Amino acid sequence: MWHDLLPVGRAPGGGYRRHAWTGADAECRAWFREQAGARGLAYEVDRNGNQWAWLGSPEDGDAVVTGSHLDSVPDGGAFDGPLGVVSAFAALDELHARGARPARPLAVVNFGDEEGARFGLACVGSRLTTGGLAPEEARELRDADGVTLPQAMERAGYDPDAIGADPERLARIGAFVELHIEQGRALADAPGDRPVGVASAIWPHGRWRFDFHGEANHAGTTRLEDRRDPMLTYANTVLAARKKARLAGALATFGKVAVEPNGVNAVASLVRGWLDSRAADEETLAAVVAGIERAAVERGARDGVRVEVVRESFTPVVEFARGLRDRIAARLGGAPLLPTGAGHDAGILSAELPTAMLYVRNPTGVSHSPAEAAEEDDCAAGVRALADTLEELACP
Amino acid sequence: MWHDLLPVGRAPGGGYRRHAWTGADAECRAWFREQAGARGLAYEVDRNGNQWAWLGSPEDGDAVVTGSHLDSVPDGGAFDGPLGVVSAFAALDELHARGARPARPLAVVNFGDEEGARFGLACVGSRLTTGGLAPEEARELRDADGVTLPQAMERAGYDPDAIGADPERLARIGAFVELHIEQGRALADAPGDRPVGVASAIWPHGRWRFDFHGEANHAGTTRLEDRRDPMLTYANTVLAARKKARLAGALATFGKVAVEPNGVNAVASLVRGWLDSRAADEETLAAVVAGIERAAVERGARDGVRVEVVRESFTPVVEFARGLRDRIAARLGGAPLLPTGAGHDAGILSAELPTAMLYVRNPTGVSHSPAEAAEEDDCAAGVRALADTLEELACP
Repeated sequence: MWHDLLPVGRAPGGGYRRHAWTGADAECRAWFREQAGARGLAYEVDRNGNQWAWLGSPEDGDAVVTGSHLDSVPDGGAFDGPLGVVSAFAALDELHARGARPARPLAVVNFGDEEGARFGLACVGSRLTTGGLAPEEARELRDADGVTLPQAMERAGYDPDAIGADPERLARIGAFVELHIEQGRALADAPGDRPVGVASAIWPHGRWRFDFHGEANHAGTTRLEDRRDPMLTYANTVLAARKKARLAGALATFGKVAVEPNGVNAVASLVRGWLDSRAADEETLAAVVAGIERAAVERGARDGVRVEVVRESFTPVVEFARGLRDRIAARLGGAPLLPTGAGHDAGILSAELPTAMLYVRNPTGVSHSPAEAAEEDDCAAGVRALADTLEELACP
Repeated sequence: MWHDLLPVGRAPGGGYRRHAWTGADAECRAWFREQAGARGLAYEVDRNGNQWAWLGSPEDGDAVVTGSHLDSVPDGGAFDGPLGVVSAFAALDELHARGARPARPLAVVNFGDEEGARFGLACVGSRLTTGGLAPEEARELRDADGVTLPQAMERAGYDPDAIGADPERLARIGAFVELHIEQGRALADAPGDRPVGVASAIWPHGRWRFDFHGEANHAGTTRLEDRRDPMLTYANTVLAARKKARLAGALATFGKVAVEPNGVNAVASLVRGWLDSRAADEETLAAVVAGIERAAVERGARDGVRVEVVRESFTPVVEFARGLRDRIAARLGGAPLLPTGAGHDAGILSAELPTAMLYVRNPTGVSHSPAEAAEEDDCAAGVRALADTLEELACP
């Protein structure tokens, strides 16, 4: 099953490009439909283009749903998303092999456009379903070529007029469990042999734009003491961000920069750097960002550089349902509880229904890159853990 | 005279855009021709498009030539270049008013395409004339729109087939003196009232590309200790460059950066930063750059980042003719001798003939920006100093 998917959307460099509503995405979706058909599961696509495969009748309610997404970031790895969908089908096979008799409907889901690689907004399929994203807003989304989300959906054979909140569908779901490749090395570094962990929370996170305003000047003639060079203030802020995040046990990253005029022999007039920061709780995050801003302003005063900070986005903490989480961890023999800094469809759904996540060990710890990895044995352990979880929840 | 030129090529923001062989450049060149005509000077354009206005016969040889350039950087100031040409005509007027009788031919020159803002290479007019730039190489130059230098010259009404070295013309010149706005604050900060200085040397300078190779990763999930973040190494190198330049009395600037993938939620895989560095002598410059490279490599080892350094260009030191320089400084009542980090047509010509430069005080010290400034009184002092210089050299 895994090997069917491997070639789809693979770029020559080894990374995957399976962006929402593209040909590679359609191939992945056709694969999903085949898997549903091969198992005699009832296949459907909801109004937002998410794919479902049902064992038992959705109308019975209190369903246990598992799945993830099949789209990827640009040059992503093979596991982020697909591992959760492949494992969902494999876990149903495992339950069948065990002779388990589910008392609740079970379903596998593939949420559309989780990565947001094409339209710039993550988790579009699940956000539309919960109503967290209004259809009017979604219809305004455009990709880098100016193609709107409705145009892309229409070209892929879906009806963009139908998109919107789907409370009836959500009301039929009693629990959602998403299995995902771990996006760090916590399991790899954990004492003992821990192929699988359980999510505790998704850290609150946000993006802040730091504008460092200096003065353009000639790099060959302006004395150092006469300069107002924003590159110095930016550089100091990058290092301060790392230090403050380290001291607080948080994350802080400057990964995007824009410079004006960006000439080799010109002192910059403006350096714009984007801070991505995340922490275990909102107080810590606020303190880290405030500390970085303070360091930037202080250094700016020394450099003659004015610093302006704009919060571009913020997502509050997601605590996964404690009862469900502890029940699954216990069933898995005391699997470690892990927080994460990444958003997921499970995070979006957690506002509406009991939601849990399983993580499979990633020995490289690398994510959103072809270097992302998982051992075959660990993937098999993930499937067994997901089957155990479904059995725990659905088979009395 | 000055006021005729002020509106030409002025952008709404106040900066000047007088790029070589454009309409604004043609207006400036028409102004030059008018100034020559109004004074009864013999006007000619040489094979490389440089404009000349002669008082006396060039054939007599041992001419004293003064001038500069009329083109500008993007959004440059009003003085860089034009001040030297305007002052040259004004100095001839001053000599006339003094009743001076030159024993040597005098000329005013406007060298084409000094700033290199359009085709990326500075001092094209003087480099072609000295043979430092081969015509074949010049014909390969292209602007951002793909227009070649020959196409641009042809559209402006000049013959690109004629370009090339002009040793006969150079052989007729006994001395070249260029007056220029100072591109720093040395005169402004000098003790006493010093509106005019004399150039001692042009510092050796070069460009080095620093490539910082790290590993792309998810900014929200990768633990700080698992990262190989090249932005940290870059930031540390920017600060190290400033420090090492300061300690050595040199200049070092990172003004241009390129980041891959340059995403807000991605640890960068590659940061590329360009170092512009200049110092009073080549040994100091080499030591500063070696020190910056060492600091980059050391920090890179800590960050898991590989550092690669490529020298993209290097220009050796230019020492202006000592005898000429000292004679002028003495005539100007002990004017301060100033080195500069910027290239000039005078620097190009100094390899072929005795060359000197005068600087006029710039109270802001700013260069290549509309904030560049000069007081009217200081400009007048510059004209008198240039007239004194021409009188010293040409009137026995």
